Amino acid sequence: MKQVTIYDIAKEANVSVATVSRVLNNTAPVKDSTRSKIMRLIDEYQFQPNALARGLSKKETGTIGVILPDVTNPFFPEVFSGIERMARDMGYTFFLCDTIGDYERESQYLNILREKQVDGIIFLGGRINLSKCKPELVDEVVETANRIPLVLVNGDLPGTSLYRVITNESKGAEIATQYLIDSGHRDIAFIAGNDNMTTTAQKVRAFKRIMKRNGLHVSGERVLYGDFSMASGERLMNRILSNEDRPTAVFCVNDFTAVGALKAAMKAGIGVPDDISIIGFDDIPLASAIYPELTTVKQQMDILGATAVQVLHKLIMKENVKKLTVIEPELVVRESTLSRDAIQ
Amino acid sequence: MKQVTIYDIAKEANVSVATVSRVLNNTAPVKDSTRSKIMRLIDEYQFQPNALARGLSKKETGTIGVILPDVTNPFFPEVFSGIERMARDMGYTFFLCDTIGDYERESQYLNILREKQVDGIIFLGGRINLSKCKPELVDEVVETANRIPLVLVNGDLPGTSLYRVITNESKGAEIATQYLIDSGHRDIAFIAGNDNMTTTAQKVRAFKRIMKRNGLHVSGERVLYGDFSMASGERLMNRILSNEDRPTAVFCVNDFTAVGALKAAMKAGIGVPDDISIIGFDDIPLASAIYPELTTVKQQMDILGATAVQVLHKLIMKENVKKLTVIEPELVVRESTLSRDAIQ
Repeated sequence: MKQVTIYDIAKEANVSVATVSRVLNNTAPVKDSTRSKIMRLIDEYQFQPNALARGLSKKETGTIGVILPDVTNPFFPEVFSGIERMARDMGYTFFLCDTIGDYERESQYLNILREKQVDGIIFLGGRINLSKCKPELVDEVVETANRIPLVLVNGDLPGTSLYRVITNESKGAEIATQYLIDSGHRDIAFIAGNDNMTTTAQKVRAFKRIMKRNGLHVSGERVLYGDFSMASGERLMNRILSNEDRPTAVFCVNDFTAVGALKAAMKAGIGVPDDISIIGFDDIPLASAIYPELTTVKQQMDILGATAVQVLHKLIMKENVKKLTVIEPELVVRESTLSRDAIQ
Repeated sequence: MKQVTIYDIAKEANVSVATVSRVLNNTAPVKDSTRSKIMRLIDEYQFQPNALARGLSKKETGTIGVILPDVTNPFFPEVFSGIERMARDMGYTFFLCDTIGDYERESQYLNILREKQVDGIIFLGGRINLSKCKPELVDEVVETANRIPLVLVNGDLPGTSLYRVITNESKGAEIATQYLIDSGHRDIAFIAGNDNMTTTAQKVRAFKRIMKRNGLHVSGERVLYGDFSMASGERLMNRILSNEDRPTAVFCVNDFTAVGALKAAMKAGIGVPDDISIIGFDDIPLASAIYPELTTVKQQMDILGATAVQVLHKLIMKENVKKLTVIEPELVVRESTLSRDAIQ
């Protein structure tokens, strides 16, 4: 049997969810005729209000706004799937706001979500990933967070202490680099994303740190900047391959650029992993759906999204919650990397 | 200089967008002090109301709800990108509602969007793609469409005359099949999606029709049903390859399954296109980002999304618009298909 939700009761009674909540929680007066109609429906459907419904105050709507920069990059839909799954049982529904990486659009959505009275906001990408974010863009988020519970995912804003759920991206880049070195690689290139984004900066720093710790030099031309797209990965890999002096392994800032790099190598007749190893970051579904399957750093996007909802839910319920929650990434070894020993 | 929008004026004046609209259009009384505050800001910022803002009645909010079944399948984000781009100039903002293919979730979102008073709804996937949709699910959409402008994309509901924007999917499947036959292929398999979805049924029918028209037989085992995922494409391709009697070409219901089929072939050491040709459908960015690049039927997802917004906008503005708008697909020949003559 279909589980009856607070939305069904509200719909059937032709009232808002907030009204049903008021009746359930006795938090505000409701017209007698409305109250008895709702009580009759609750009885009829044997409605069991879930944790959220019981906790809803008259101000709460059961909706959450999710702001993200690019639905066409699978990383974000995957995190969003984790958000969806975790929130289902809690009875939340979502508005997904795609900003196409446009900061003005982010401002607009922050505004609109406030107007639409969502209970909370989860913010991914865009300005919260900038190495240097303008003060007015920071202020806007802080102002919003003062009014509505707000959680940043994989990002930060300078000088603030907002609630955050992040992947330990530095750690992930360290693990990947060390894995390549342990496999016998000495000359490794890094295909990076935009150089003004923290996700690029953190990973490049970790890559260089581990190389140095192992006594290996990284020349300037071994770190190539572009964006986070497949086309960028292909372009930068072509640049790497056009040199006679080729690295034996390439570490890519994300799986999208790794897929592009893989294509460039195959097209040039360079075997992966036989001639060159490629390692990605994220573990989007595509990573294991292509041939050869990508070795990559798994971000646990599902857990990242789900955890963001748990933190936000606690904020909405005014429960105690840590300012920072860190999810540890892990290496997934597949087919696109090879030990140098196996080659020689 | 940043272009000032109706949202900025509303925010600065600390009133709703509807109030600014009322002042702009003189459609309803607004308190004198509020009116003069708004007029001062309009003057100060030299605000030029765009077409949408000028047309906004007191009921309108400038927001549109987009309901879709799966943000992790790139087809939908691509259509959504088209929606976004077209709507920018019109000043609309969007709520994207991901239903994870769950019909109850669709009902919930239809409800919530109504509560949140969006100006219009664009509906993709889910129940509108079912070969047999339950009457109560149909009724719900019709009821919503009676109250709020609503446009279906690539779908239909039996016994209704809702506004629709669709790709001519049958035509696309016909073109692809004829192309394979013209290239000398006689034994062609079809990797299909879920068998209860119209997108599968339409394409399978068109495939069989063209095969028959060319005097070619399609045995039952040459049409394989699964779902629309890469994993399904890989699984079904493995089944095809496990038979000694192999087709020379495989037509896939979408690019996702084609990517999976390609992986299965490469993993089995079957050359694509040398040993077997593969053709997809949609032309998602991934189609040209892998090696070999996929031959596919381009859906013009961008135009599909943009056209849906144009139709919806006309409905919101109460202008005349056709019930049905058809976008024609086109074949994009890349590297995953080969003429049989070239092989023999």
